Amino acid sequence: MIHLSLIGIGTGNPDHITLAGVRALREAELILLPRKGEARSDLVDLRRLLCRQLLDEAAQSRVVEFDLPRRDGRDDYLGAVDDWHAAIAATWREHMTQRLPEGGRVAMLIWGDPSLYDSSLRIAARLKGTGLEQESGMTLEVEVVPGITSLQVLTAEHRIPLNALAEPVQITTGRRLRERGWPGDAASLAVMLDAGGAFQTLAPKGLHIWWGAYLGMDKQCLIDGPLAEVGPAIVERRAALRERHGWIMDVYLLARQPLLE
Amino acid sequence: MIHLSLIGIGTGNPDHITLAGVRALREAELILLPRKGEARSDLVDLRRLLCRQLLDEAAQSRVVEFDLPRRDGRDDYLGAVDDWHAAIAATWREHMTQRLPEGGRVAMLIWGDPSLYDSSLRIAARLKGTGLEQESGMTLEVEVVPGITSLQVLTAEHRIPLNALAEPVQITTGRRLRERGWPGDAASLAVMLDAGGAFQTLAPKGLHIWWGAYLGMDKQCLIDGPLAEVGPAIVERRAALRERHGWIMDVYLLARQPLLE
Repeated sequence: MIHLSLIGIGTGNPDHITLAGVRALREAELILLPRKGEARSDLVDLRRLLCRQLLDEAAQSRVVEFDLPRRDGRDDYLGAVDDWHAAIAATWREHMTQRLPEGGRVAMLIWGDPSLYDSSLRIAARLKGTGLEQESGMTLEVEVVPGITSLQVLTAEHRIPLNALAEPVQITTGRRLRERGWPGDAASLAVMLDAGGAFQTLAPKGLHIWWGAYLGMDKQCLIDGPLAEVGPAIVERRAALRERHGWIMDVYLLARQPLLE
Repeated sequence: MIHLSLIGIGTGNPDHITLAGVRALREAELILLPRKGEARSDLVDLRRLLCRQLLDEAAQSRVVEFDLPRRDGRDDYLGAVDDWHAAIAATWREHMTQRLPEGGRVAMLIWGDPSLYDSSLRIAARLKGTGLEQESGMTLEVEVVPGITSLQVLTAEHRIPLNALAEPVQITTGRRLRERGWPGDAASLAVMLDAGGAFQTLAPKGLHIWWGAYLGMDKQCLIDGPLAEVGPAIVERRAALRERHGWIMDVYLLARQPLLE
């Protein structure tokens, strides 16, 4: 049997990991550490740092880095993602069966939390029936260790809640916000995976924004204010930061009413 | 100056606390531990357990338990909450100024995460301008240490994501679901603070539910399946568990489409 722990590690700050995450990491016989093959080497570096800080020297040898397949940039987004997940599942399977032919405990360090805009659970599901189980005869048991999401770091750093009192909050993507606008029945709206400035498609009147980039890292940057006032500054700052660091990850919260009243 | 750390402690499992949470707890000179004055003594017990596990013996004396004021049960929900927050803020202020007349570091252990359906940030905001700062002349600095929410434990235990691939998710309350039904533009819907079975107001056809009670605790209970099939069983189980334990806390996720595809 392969026991796969998907460990949420938070975002940027190695102290975001939970005691349960530390334990799962230490119990693993194999720690798979994907390299994105992109400029975001900081994200790989954080995982390496966590492993160095939390594992003793002997356990360091259990960390195996590998290159992730790249996603096809074609227009059919869902189709490209589907193919990409299949390719990643094949890569996981290869490393697991090579390194642990008799089974054992595998850990993967997941940015944020495996439940929110992360594909690890979907990729693991591909390994379950077909793939790993069928080819190797081993069963796969998946465990999820929750981690702090970037939205939680955003609200913590701005010292605000996600929801207005007794009101709902919607979590969506930049792509969706561009396509559909403000969703029905949401007093506040958290936006992730925005390729940049999807909030510019909204009429800014009456909206407040809390924005954060590189959350939890030394280079963290926060801006908040009325969207009409700070929106252009966020777009400008985002472009400058991306230019300087070679990559950027940012999220933001929008609200139509005060969140702290 | 009073430095107030609002530390998210997760739900039920003491290993949900992050390394940052452990550090903030250990650095505190005063740890305020509210008793709810209700049957939910388990929730107070978990906080006591965390303090015992994470603090040395000398530091135990920094833990001060106090009784929270009760919320007025009147029909005007928002008005009752407003009065209640004012009363809680007065209680916090009293304990802080009595125990730390010269200022210092205060910690409070917050169930879940301070950002989601929690009032600590709103109560702290009341202390800022008026209240504590005005009366004592001390400034208040608030720090938020994110913690694992019950929704994250729910999805981790069911091994599902919150969102369908590239789709938005809405987080709402049982009260809101009863009043407004399924919100526009949400492929999945997480429901918190439900006094019981608000999902019964939905047409169940095509909906799947993942339900969890006492998440993270030994008595954790999970049910999932098509809403039409398992909805009645959840209502029944919830009533029986509440009867047996004297209290219940549960959350659930509903989705119109598969979450793992």
